[in-house]
Amino acid sequence: MSANVQDSIMLFGDSITQGGWETGMNGFGANLAHRYARKLDVINRGFSGYNTEWGIPVFEQLWATREQQKDLPTVRLLVIWFGANDSCLVQSPQHVPLPKFASNLKHIINLVQSPKSEYHSPDTRIILVTPPPVNTYQRRANLENRDPPLALDRDFEVTRNYAEAVKDIAQEEEVGIIDIWTKMWDAAGHDEQSLSNFLYDGLHLNGPGYQLMYDAVLETIEKTYPELHPDRLEMVFPGWAMIDRNNVVASVTRGPK
Amino acid sequence: MSANVQDSIMLFGDSITQGGWETGMNGFGANLAHRYARKLDVINRGFSGYNTEWGIPVFEQLWATREQQKDLPTVRLLVIWFGANDSCLVQSPQHVPLPKFASNLKHIINLVQSPKSEYHSPDTRIILVTPPPVNTYQRRANLENRDPPLALDRDFEVTRNYAEAVKDIAQEEEVGIIDIWTKMWDAAGHDEQSLSNFLYDGLHLNGPGYQLMYDAVLETIEKTYPELHPDRLEMVFPGWAMIDRNNVVASVTRGPK
Repeated sequence: MSANVQDSIMLFGDSITQGGWETGMNGFGANLAHRYARKLDVINRGFSGYNTEWGIPVFEQLWATREQQKDLPTVRLLVIWFGANDSCLVQSPQHVPLPKFASNLKHIINLVQSPKSEYHSPDTRIILVTPPPVNTYQRRANLENRDPPLALDRDFEVTRNYAEAVKDIAQEEEVGIIDIWTKMWDAAGHDEQSLSNFLYDGLHLNGPGYQLMYDAVLETIEKTYPELHPDRLEMVFPGWAMIDRNNVVASVTRGPK
Repeated sequence: MSANVQDSIMLFGDSITQGGWETGMNGFGANLAHRYARKLDVINRGFSGYNTEWGIPVFEQLWATREQQKDLPTVRLLVIWFGANDSCLVQSPQHVPLPKFASNLKHIINLVQSPKSEYHSPDTRIILVTPPPVNTYQRRANLENRDPPLALDRDFEVTRNYAEAVKDIAQEEEVGIIDIWTKMWDAAGHDEQSLSNFLYDGLHLNGPGYQLMYDAVLETIEKTYPELHPDRLEMVFPGWAMIDRNNVVASVTRGPK
């Protein structure tokens, strides 16, 4: 078992989060975990294919109740990144209508932030992330190459609307925001086909895409929750050069939490 | 807070473990975390510069007591990888004499496995890892280039002896073993200078080095604890295509643990 010595950052989302530990893709989650080594654990709660509708009942199981929280490490930061599947076209089983998507996101925030919630966690800060823009040229080609071929399931403008909604909710709920939609769109020079520089299949991020995201996470932390920036956190256990060889136990023993 | 829904693998060791999430180095820890996504979390408890002497009092804080374990996720697998610092030459503050290194390793195993131990965890399997071979050509050049220059602090044969001790302990204590020393030495064609194919500074692993380690972890799991191989573990929450849209909550709800 892992004792309650190190708090964490939880990344909650869909396949774009789940894939965030792929070293070959420069996964942003793995890079964050490395940056926060010995300070905060980074927990991957990415669920490939999930939308917010399916995410909520899962969240209610993976997030500790107030009672359970007493014995568990604190999630100091919760990064919520949905929308890439919710914004599927109406015929897709993954589609969630925009108003429902918005109310679902607010519901998740409320589960954590409302003092009335069974899942209330007053020491958790929240960051919302917009879905990335879709490159429908790449996505169409990818789907047409499957066996059997599939029809295009996402639309550039629709995803943009879901991204806009995420920004509105972040402002309304006064939580942090990473607008990766706009960052990526700007980096692609407002040219849909150039999004292939950041997406490997029109939907999922490649190395440079995850680099944009990694940089954006640290930028938003610095701006919104600077006390959680890795440069401002102490290591849980001291660096080896600080250990007093004549008094090892005392020099590595942490005070009461 | 993260509820107790997903068990874990803990990697406990020195800088070679701490660096295991570096995507640019193809970090074996990040790759394992990706491979075990939605099955087991992979927790990095690597402490740069640490030897077993300093590792023990830290372990006694980061490993949950029997009492604490009731409320925490189970560490299903503990990978213990020390020796790279213990095997420093006598003049180094990191040096731990070989017999003491061996008894320290046994002590850590005992803390987890002995029913008399306050830290006893009957559901944790253990794998020991040998330190990798040292490339003293690279290591000497690296140390001489520092400001001020440092003298060579490790010896090829000494580290080999520490690696041999780890193998003996694994056999004696009947725990799993990853003999990365021999794997790397064989891969380098028994030529010390060719170890630079796997070490970036004579001591720490590069991309191909971590690839050897990643493959070796899965190989040892398959051989020694096959029930923990990722191919044999179910996802904690179902794949999205298994979700019944007319009965979402029931289809994503986990049974009692």
